[in-house]
Amino acid sequence: MALISEKNIYYLGPDGSNAHCAMLKFLKVCNISVENKIPQRNIRTVIDCEVKDLQALCVLPIENSIEGIVRETIDNLLKVKDSDIQIRGEISLPIRHLLLAKTTNINDIKKIISHPQALAQCSSFLHEKFKNAEIQEVSSTSYAAQKVSTSNDNTIAAIANEESARIFNLNVLSSDINDENNNLTRFYILSRKNFDKTQNGKTALAFATKNESGALCKALQVFDKYSINLTYIDSRPSKKKIGEYVFFVEIEGYREDEKNKNAISELSSYTEFVKILGSFQVFK
Amino acid sequence: MALISEKNIYYLGPDGSNAHCAMLKFLKVCNISVENKIPQRNIRTVIDCEVKDLQALCVLPIENSIEGIVRETIDNLLKVKDSDIQIRGEISLPIRHLLLAKTTNINDIKKIISHPQALAQCSSFLHEKFKNAEIQEVSSTSYAAQKVSTSNDNTIAAIANEESARIFNLNVLSSDINDENNNLTRFYILSRKNFDKTQNGKTALAFATKNESGALCKALQVFDKYSINLTYIDSRPSKKKIGEYVFFVEIEGYREDEKNKNAISELSSYTEFVKILGSFQVFK
Repeated sequence: MALISEKNIYYLGPDGSNAHCAMLKFLKVCNISVENKIPQRNIRTVIDCEVKDLQALCVLPIENSIEGIVRETIDNLLKVKDSDIQIRGEISLPIRHLLLAKTTNINDIKKIISHPQALAQCSSFLHEKFKNAEIQEVSSTSYAAQKVSTSNDNTIAAIANEESARIFNLNVLSSDINDENNNLTRFYILSRKNFDKTQNGKTALAFATKNESGALCKALQVFDKYSINLTYIDSRPSKKKIGEYVFFVEIEGYREDEKNKNAISELSSYTEFVKILGSFQVFK
Repeated sequence: MALISEKNIYYLGPDGSNAHCAMLKFLKVCNISVENKIPQRNIRTVIDCEVKDLQALCVLPIENSIEGIVRETIDNLLKVKDSDIQIRGEISLPIRHLLLAKTTNINDIKKIISHPQALAQCSSFLHEKFKNAEIQEVSSTSYAAQKVSTSNDNTIAAIANEESARIFNLNVLSSDINDENNNLTRFYILSRKNFDKTQNGKTALAFATKNESGALCKALQVFDKYSINLTYIDSRPSKKKIGEYVFFVEIEGYREDEKNKNAISELSSYTEFVKILGSFQVFK
């Protein structure tokens, strides 16, 4: 479907992570094969690898429907100086938390470990069924599953996904334990090469408004003037001065579309800077 | 200065935390004495205590100049049903990270523990001086200091603040180790009673736009129409559907000010809901 071939693909590991699952889904949906799937320890190193490797793709989480924007991704994307590396695709993954253990008896469990976000997203379940259990935070859900699988203690359980259950050979004690049902994470696919263009394209850009009254309103009016739909808006601190922000938006259509081209050019006169992070298609 | 008296004040503990320091600064600046200073384990329980306790103040972090909005605070404030509990004050605290240990020799240190945000904010320092040290994440900076003080291992150091050094009787091995200089956290003070009004008031409100093109722009134009300055804007996922957001803004002036009253009333016709979180003064 998407005509692109690269040697390496980088993603946030370890294997079994949601980014790993999103990467596999992307390769399948697009019928792409890569030589090497290379997990990284954090988002910063995924981007560093992508910058250094001329023949690579990478997969990065950008937004979770419960938690909001993934700050480490957007802050690091804003720092990338190599303008050839652009967002080329988007893929979404439903997040389903499971309770995993070596034992098959849920009553054995005395301690539960997971990433703080996963623990927070299952807090009603934990409050109801594991009021007296010890709760421990670890760096990722897949690391929690790995830790349970290598522990000699059968009273520990991990909150992680189905892929982790498979990889680490753990039993599912309880499934769909999320407090909220609409738990979904969007991922970006970045590369130097472009995919084939489709109808449902979006463009991601960042800008800083001038320090004057109504500046954001003036910037947004540009999109309104050209009837361009904003599909996302968020802000990040400039990190230079409290009260100064960088806005991050996604708009419908490609950067080359006539009305988007005009709007982006006009936007420059109301802003300190505009950075186009990429035009991309949404893979389903 | 501010005429208010309450019995209890709740804040995010343990003692030595930045919220604890902000609470002490607030009581000093406003010359307020309270009977009980009561630390809580997390932001959710601070708000729960405030709701149940009719004679209480509470202190909550809302924004850090590097990290952005404190999601747990805004998400929980949006859930508070008791309209009497409002934001009444704001106070800011510079965040200064120190390297603390039992030893006085920095060369002894082989392991460094702290909160993930503090570790991230000192990453250049750690990369330069402690390339081979073991790094461990714990739940708060003050807990890290406490852990170092009770450990028999003299090769562990904590990244925490000056107050923690004092409380846990630790040596300062290195000070001002933050990567960025402008590290500042804003805190809200909430209560049922109002402080005396001053000139420099702000009002915090949240609204959800209607699901139509240019909806945010129309909402912001209302503030522009009345020449009301937005001092802050951020968005949070509605948690109901991906792509639906709640916007959180702060504007200059009090809710009773004529132009703010008109703007807020007009805003209702462009939004699904408007919730006023409070009008408050900024304590320096």
